[in-house]
Amino acid sequence: MLYLIGLGLGDAEDITVKGLKLVRAAKRAYLEAYTSILTSQKKDLEEFYGRELILADRDLVEQSSDTILADATKEDVAFLVVGDPFGATTHTDLVLRAIERGIPYQVVHNASIMSAIGCCGLQLYNFGETVSFVFWTDTWRPSSYIDKIEANLQRGHHTLCLLDIKVKEQSVENMMKGRKVYEPPRYMTVSQAIEQLLEAISQRKAKGQKSSILSEETICVGLARIGSECQKIVCGKVSEMVDVDMGPPLHSLIIAGNVHYLEIEMLKYFAINQTTFTYDETKM
Amino acid sequence: MLYLIGLGLGDAEDITVKGLKLVRAAKRAYLEAYTSILTSQKKDLEEFYGRELILADRDLVEQSSDTILADATKEDVAFLVVGDPFGATTHTDLVLRAIERGIPYQVVHNASIMSAIGCCGLQLYNFGETVSFVFWTDTWRPSSYIDKIEANLQRGHHTLCLLDIKVKEQSVENMMKGRKVYEPPRYMTVSQAIEQLLEAISQRKAKGQKSSILSEETICVGLARIGSECQKIVCGKVSEMVDVDMGPPLHSLIIAGNVHYLEIEMLKYFAINQTTFTYDETKM
Repeated sequence: MLYLIGLGLGDAEDITVKGLKLVRAAKRAYLEAYTSILTSQKKDLEEFYGRELILADRDLVEQSSDTILADATKEDVAFLVVGDPFGATTHTDLVLRAIERGIPYQVVHNASIMSAIGCCGLQLYNFGETVSFVFWTDTWRPSSYIDKIEANLQRGHHTLCLLDIKVKEQSVENMMKGRKVYEPPRYMTVSQAIEQLLEAISQRKAKGQKSSILSEETICVGLARIGSECQKIVCGKVSEMVDVDMGPPLHSLIIAGNVHYLEIEMLKYFAINQTTFTYDETKM
Repeated sequence: MLYLIGLGLGDAEDITVKGLKLVRAAKRAYLEAYTSILTSQKKDLEEFYGRELILADRDLVEQSSDTILADATKEDVAFLVVGDPFGATTHTDLVLRAIERGIPYQVVHNASIMSAIGCCGLQLYNFGETVSFVFWTDTWRPSSYIDKIEANLQRGHHTLCLLDIKVKEQSVENMMKGRKVYEPPRYMTVSQAIEQLLEAISQRKAKGQKSSILSEETICVGLARIGSECQKIVCGKVSEMVDVDMGPPLHSLIIAGNVHYLEIEMLKYFAINQTTFTYDETKM
């Protein structure tokens, strides 16, 4: 049996009782370590679970899934994923390979950033499509996410922005020379995302593509380390958020659409500036 | 301290290790019992947690929250919610009352139906706004959810439909006579939701409001008891789903928008009829 086990979002203790039992009993347990992180390190998890974990990087999961699935028709293999196994990153591909090989599978769900963001007070059923922000390079600066955010805003919907994670990336030079030397991991901050957003808006204005709704005045919410004891939620206008220091990763960003009374009351609790939510409440 | 603790979606063992510790240590523990259900009963939860739970119905939570929050500045109170405390049903109101009274609070996240639905293979970031289906009465037959589903479909997005739950409802007669006699709980089935959908589409056609995208041919996914060992996922055209028996509650329904290759591969696994996903794959 292949068990896909969600670890939730905070630390080692955020695994479910069901998940913990299965991790402990499995023949092999892989820790997917390239799409998200916990505040706990691998060794903390191993200590808490009382067993060894095999680190599964992108190469192993995408190119050597046979290794993960070996003997899984006879033995139990646990595949551990931060958040939920079908949340922000989905492991459909691994499941399909298991199905092809006649390996039964079971999912142990857990908190995903896709739903845990409800803790900021914005209601999940008012969210539209989710977008992803990627790190820009000198030559690759995609900003198509703005169309999606604007389409959500036009319908009054909030937008969850998932921020880029670069783990085990090679520099162009190392890649060309075939050297398996990796850059330090990078996690996009709320402040970097806001900077990118502002630059994309101004570029579009310069090209005459007017950004009709999204502006420096738009309300947004920065979230960091959600589910951990050191989580941080900060809310304000785009222009106010550019200098906010949210601390260590992971960060996420929400662009708020129409905000209802109860949502405002909760956002106030996280506001940089209380007046943001008083002077134009009637317009929101 | 007020702890809002998610119980996840399956049975007693779907609580997190962190959540379980806090439930056991709390002075009082309330079980929110009117917006969702587990496959475990209250007594199973009490046995597993090793403590008594106080059932919190809508009246207690919405009208007597002072009782729940009593002494929570000095003592730990646990408020247990099926799924995530800010998932499909949000408990913002209780948190705001705690904040007003100077009571600190902490959230222990868990799986929510809002993200666990990813297990059917449809990717969460392709979902648009979530809609709610309510039980129709002879005189109240709202169908505004169709506009929202259509708006999602126009953008190629999937729609999660949360299906109605009626717990501790009074009949009109009992309500008028002030008798606290309650009807048996009702949980909308996938089949009932599809029937309602078909009737709403045909009523709109009769009024000349053409339903341009949503039709009997639209692909949808029925989900029941997600996260439990007896979960069931069935996928097919709207017309094929009307007679599907998904078994005991809770049920949810997804109306699929544009379906990508990996999504199709996964949906096939749950298909009533494999040919649904072969003859017009190129159009999807």
